[in-house]
This record gives sequence, structure tokens and C-alpha cells, in this order.
Amino acid sequence: MGAKVNRQWRLVARPVGLIKESDFGWYEQPIPTLDEGKILIRNIYLSLDPASRNWAREVKSYFPPVAIGDVMLGRTIGVVAQSRHANFKEEDIVLGMLGWQEYSLTDGTGLSQLPKDSSLPLTAYLGLLGNIGPTAYFGLLDIGKPEAGETLVVSAAAGAVGSLVGQIGKIKGCRVVGIAGTEEKCHWITEDLGFDAAINYKTERVHERLITHCPDGIDVYFDNVGGEILDTVLTLINGKARIVICGLISQYNAVKPVHGPFNFIRILAQRARVEGFLVLDYENRFQEAYVDLERWHAEKKIKYRVDLVDGLENAPRAINKLFDGSNKGKLIIKVSEEPSF
Amino acid sequence: MGAKVNRQWRLVARPVGLIKESDFGWYEQPIPTLDEGKILIRNIYLSLDPASRNWAREVKSYFPPVAIGDVMLGRTIGVVAQSRHANFKEEDIVLGMLGWQEYSLTDGTGLSQLPKDSSLPLTAYLGLLGNIGPTAYFGLLDIGKPEAGETLVVSAAAGAVGSLVGQIGKIKGCRVVGIAGTEEKCHWITEDLGFDAAINYKTERVHERLITHCPDGIDVYFDNVGGEILDTVLTLINGKARIVICGLISQYNAVKPVHGPFNFIRILAQRARVEGFLVLDYENRFQEAYVDLERWHAEKKIKYRVDLVDGLENAPRAINKLFDGSNKGKLIIKVSEEPSF
Repeated sequence: MGAKVNRQWRLVARPVGLIKESDFGWYEQPIPTLDEGKILIRNIYLSLDPASRNWAREVKSYFPPVAIGDVMLGRTIGVVAQSRHANFKEEDIVLGMLGWQEYSLTDGTGLSQLPKDSSLPLTAYLGLLGNIGPTAYFGLLDIGKPEAGETLVVSAAAGAVGSLVGQIGKIKGCRVVGIAGTEEKCHWITEDLGFDAAINYKTERVHERLITHCPDGIDVYFDNVGGEILDTVLTLINGKARIVICGLISQYNAVKPVHGPFNFIRILAQRARVEGFLVLDYENRFQEAYVDLERWHAEKKIKYRVDLVDGLENAPRAINKLFDGSNKGKLIIKVSEEPSF
Repeated sequence: MGAKVNRQWRLVARPVGLIKESDFGWYEQPIPTLDEGKILIRNIYLSLDPASRNWAREVKSYFPPVAIGDVMLGRTIGVVAQSRHANFKEEDIVLGMLGWQEYSLTDGTGLSQLPKDSSLPLTAYLGLLGNIGPTAYFGLLDIGKPEAGETLVVSAAAGAVGSLVGQIGKIKGCRVVGIAGTEEKCHWITEDLGFDAAINYKTERVHERLITHCPDGIDVYFDNVGGEILDTVLTLINGKARIVICGLISQYNAVKPVHGPFNFIRILAQRARVEGFLVLDYENRFQEAYVDLERWHAEKKIKYRVDLVDGLENAPRAINKLFDGSNKGKLIIKVSEEPSF
């Protein structure tokens, strides 16, 4: 191990607009020796999420912002390479927030062990059985509170969260309409995932298509994007509609203040509820979600897909796939090979 | 009665911006004779409310818009002048939506009888014991859900609704900060009504004053105005804050589209709930509110004031008092004299 270097991406500038590779610096440095109580993790998978963009801002959100010069924050799955810690042994598989780097030295705080005998691939623990599944599950069911027969609209519908939201909506008996940005995505959510309809917001008139596909109006809108699509949806919400603000991707890269929807007054006119949602508030209930999600997955009622990008060196470029719409499913960087057991 | 004329204001043009007197036409016409099953009401009081502005729009809200040429819509208290209806007799006092006119011929649909022996003046039935009291009561308690020790901010705080909201907030143990537009109003809500602090938005920096007066942040915002004040409040909301959208007075007179708050993203960051509220959804629960409100009023825990304007001819001018901030309490037109019993 002694000769190995640890390569990592550090934040060197606050991004303006879309993240640029020059906002990060690529550092190589020796791996330090292990003190008592420490473990060394070799990272295997790194999750890239729209929220990552916000962690690079100089704004306190649910995490403190990444400081300039620090390793970029990110959720990871790794394998214990060396351990001088009583609770971890070599070859343990762990989930944590170990950042954009190949190796992480840690005292184990915040790490959780993953099973090696799961029927699902390891990457599922960054998606369906990570934060993504509970985001879709609690955001839709606890905040959106859809009822059978209601109409649910989902934006970023082919994304990691949106695709699950729509499928859970179908399980709960809703009419589900997804909004996505390519023909391939629209095809996938209707043909493979069972959405009732899809709207390609890049080629179709969203307002007209929503009128067509939501003949009874919109009862629940699960919003990942904000912006014009939210504004358009507001014109068609029913009385007592629920709008789950799970993400506002359209404005994460904004360089000047972004105004809220012009149709804000519809919240009053329709007595609608608009509620922000962060899955971390539900951490102590994740197991509830996992039980249902694993069962639905085993019953083939929900599917997901992973967009795996090879090589940590590609992380700064790959993250923009979340904002230009080119990702297909949960975006994950493969940092190193899985061990074989 | 035969020689009497009925004078009325009819909507003759859709207002653009603030209501102008020329948007209404003053009509005089004979009072028709009474058919069987009808009653003739002499209107005594006419309620003017911010919502009246919206009823003059060509937009369906919870009431259909007033058609051009129709008598303007308005809530009224009147006395039965003549009756050929089994359920009403002369001198009965009735509450209804009989519009901007001196006399109304009706079959009694939607009318309710008012007691003649109340300890409160008749005008209370257009305020505390009308829609205003339940608006404050259910809007704050059912939607805002304040808890003792939390900080409540109210806009239009010296208005009919806002002044009750703040007092109910105090009864529930909140720190209450009101925002109003004159020194007199700020003085009234702090000195007479017991608000903890007041901010004059026309002369003070609202953001700085909110920071001073809300040292623990804002948990509940009862919004009657929208616009810049809502935007400012959003910067200071606590996690899981609740924002009751009861009115958006700042934009009722807008002549072009109004954007939503720039700080919309705070809804996500703070997992806030923004919920539109119309008191008509609570009609079957008004009695709950009245019981508490009458008791609190008798215990001198809540006070209200009425801004009585004499003469129906002044209604189109008077309604703008709600938008230029010159009204002091519940705005009511005195159409004719109360009968003496």
C-alpha cells in the first residue's frame, strides 16, 4: 500500500453557472499510514446528484458548503482496504460521504455497512436502497399524498427520483404523466415503466399536452425542476392540489436571482399546498421505504437504471449530464473495481 | 313603498389597476312589486373586502365573475322590508350576498337570519362573526398551526384579518410581529392589541427590522399581501416553516403578470409549507370559530375596529382604501339606518 497514491478532486473555485472542470483541481498525494482507530477505504462508486451542485455554492444548506481547497463532497460505496478499527475489517463494504477521491482515511463516523449477499447490485445502495428510493417514496406518499384515481405529474420523469415517483404513483392507482427531455426517455417511461403518458418538453408544447393528458386536472405535482414547467403546471392544478418541491434543477446553475412562478396566485385560488422536501428529514424511517421498494422491485412493479461513468477523472464533466438532460438513470462514477468475494 | 327607487352600482367596465368610479354605473330604478315567495330587503351594511377586486375580474375564482351590467357583488346585512315568504317576516335581520344596492328582491336563497339580541353590534356579523373571524381563526390555527413559543409574522397586520390573526397568535403563546403601513397602525397593534413588535414597511427596512424582531427566525407567516414582503420573509423562515397564503393584495390591481418570490428556493431549502387558504372551505365549521372568538372578545383578549363609510354612493371610492392602506379596520359601507327595535 505504501507506494500508492490517492487521487482526488478538490474544489478550487465556486462554480458560476454550469460546473467547469477548472472549478476543480486534480490532486495526487501519498496515502498516510493508519493510526489506531482509523480505517482506509478504497472507494468503488461515487454518486453524482443535482444537490452536488448546491454543495459547491457558498450557501449553507442542509450540509455546510464545501470549502475552497477541500475534497468535493459526495456519497460513496467503498471497500475497507486496511483497518485499525474494532468495528470494521478488511473487505467490509461501506456506504458513506467520503467524497470525490480514490481512498479515504476515516474514523468510521457516519459509515454504514452494506450486505454482501444482496440480490441487488451494490450500485442499488446509491439509488433504490440509498437516498433516491426514500426520496421518491416519502416525497410522493408523505408530502404528495396521492389517492387512487388522482392525476400525478412528475418532472425530470426519467431521472433517478422521477422514474420511481411515477412507478409508485401507478402502484397507488394514479394516472401518471411524466415530463422529460428526450424521445428515448419518454419512450422508456411509457413503454417500460408504465406511465400513462409522457411529454417531451423540448419538442412539445407542455401546456397543451398537459391539457390533453390530464383531462381531470392535476392533483399532485412532484417537481424536480421548478421554472417554466412549474409555472405551467400551476395553471392546471385542481383545488387542494399538492406540489412537492423536491428539486429546482432549472435554477441550480443560475447566475442571477431567479423569480418564482408567475402563477403563484394559483396557490391561493386553488388552496394548493406547496411543500419543500428533503429526504434527510426521514432518515429514521428509511427502512419503511426499503421494505416496500425491495418488494415492489422483486415483483417487477418498479424498475430503475444506472448511468455508470467509468473513472473518477471524469466526475466534473459527468455531473453536467444531470443538467443538460443527457443522463439515463442514476448517475454514478465507477472509481475502482468491485472486489470479488 | 311604491314610490321608492332602488339605487345600485352596476359593473360597467373591467377595472384596470385600481378600481375607478367610472368602472361602475349608478342606476336608479323602481322597486318591483312582490310576487309570492319573495322578500324585499332594505340593505343596511355592505362589506368591502380585498376579494371584491377579484370578483370584478373576468376570471373564475370561487365565485363566478360579476358580468358587465350586473349589480356588483357584495356581502350585506339588511332588514326585511316586505315579505311574501313563509320563512321571513318584516323587520327580520338577514345576512346575504345582496350586492351594492339599497334594496334587494330575493327568494331567500343563501340568506341567514341574525339575532336581534346580540351583545355585539350588527356590523360584527360582517367581521368577527362573519367571514373575517373564521378567516383569521382557521387560517392561522388549521393552516399555520402555530405552537407556543414560535414566532408568527403577519402582514396587513392592522387589517380586519391581520389584527385578529396577531391576537389569536398571542393567545396561543406566540411571539407576534406585525407589518403595517402607518405609524398609527403600528401603534395600535402593539399598544392596544398586544403584538410584540410592529414594522412600518413604508418607512423602515423590513429585512433588518425582521432580523431584530425575530431573533429566533420565523416559524409561521400569515400573508395577506404577497410581493416583496413575502420575498423578504422567505429569507428568514425556519425549517418546517408554514406560510399561509390568505391574500395577495399587492397584486390584485396588477395590470401585467406578477412573478412569484425570488426566494422561492427557500421553500425547498427550509422544507417549508406554503398553503393557499379560502375560508369558504370551512363554512361548516364556522360555529367552532365563533364560540372561541366571542369568548375571547368577551374576555377582552381580542379587539377589532370597524371603518364605517357613510353612503352607498361612496362604495367605488372607498374600496381603494383597502389597497392604499388608508382603512382602519373592517371596511363597511353604511347603506341605510339600522331599524330600532
